[in-house]
Amino acid sequence: MPTLEYQKDDFFFMRQAIQEAKRAMEIDEVPIGAVIVKADEVIARAHNLRETLQDATAHAELLAIRKACEVLGTWRLEGCTLYVTLEPCPMCAGAVILSRVDRLVFGAKDPKGGACGSLMNLPADERFNHRPKIAAGIMADECGNILKKFFQDKRMNKKA
Amino acid sequence: MPTLEYQKDDFFFMRQAIQEAKRAMEIDEVPIGAVIVKADEVIARAHNLRETLQDATAHAELLAIRKACEVLGTWRLEGCTLYVTLEPCPMCAGAVILSRVDRLVFGAKDPKGGACGSLMNLPADERFNHRPKIAAGIMADECGNILKKFFQDKRMNKKA
Repeated sequence: MPTLEYQKDDFFFMRQAIQEAKRAMEIDEVPIGAVIVKADEVIARAHNLRETLQDATAHAELLAIRKACEVLGTWRLEGCTLYVTLEPCPMCAGAVILSRVDRLVFGAKDPKGGACGSLMNLPADERFNHRPKIAAGIMADECGNILKKFFQDKRMNKKA
Repeated sequence: MPTLEYQKDDFFFMRQAIQEAKRAMEIDEVPIGAVIVKADEVIARAHNLRETLQDATAHAELLAIRKACEVLGTWRLEGCTLYVTLEPCPMCAGAVILSRVDRLVFGAKDPKGGACGSLMNLPADERFNHRPKIAAGIMADECGNILKKFFQDKRMNKKA
């Protein structure tokens, strides 16, 4: 399983990822948010937009990675840390590896679909040519509760 | 390993994916091409554009999936087949699963990075809520030779 080696500013930046998750909630998207940080600065922020864009690839992490590439003018996100409220799926974990992000910090685990320690651990797979460091479980309750509330409200509305 | 159950038109559509790979070669991108077909019609075509766009996620399959979502106006690519010249990586295999593509047909295997039978087999993983059918190895030599030639030329130019 991933380590729990937090750094000083991880809570500060995860709070910003949580803000992004809340923005997704406001527009009725599954509330997952991400930010990418380089040299102590947020260079990209995004939230899940699958329904809004009707794009299967519009997960928070993938959108944040695309924005960060655009901002830096390179596909190599060396020196960057990606913060995301939920453990990335295989698509997003693969994008983290391909973009050479230094560190991946995530909040809640995803036992059903997570590819960074739950179902598998792609970023730790030594067969790939880049292995980002992982820190898992930071502010996990807060990140997870946003998701729980979203799905509870969905069920309530269905019943009503 | 994936099955080899080809359908009548698989060669026809893989040839179009190969055309896309050649377009990538012309602009000095690693030559990988993809097309997405629904009801016998190509609805999206794309080739690797990582260097051109400086976007780590700009693999042929991901670009084709995004285009197909846009064309159909939905993130659900049910009834669609994705043809790609090289075995998808974890990011692209993940996107194939998320977009609910019916069938994935690929040409050459990728022993170093392939996530559809080589290093792992994500689309066959029963823990995900969608499992596309896979047909592997169609026109594999032609698909692989385009890549071999590209990297041979790169090495030659380095030496010259």
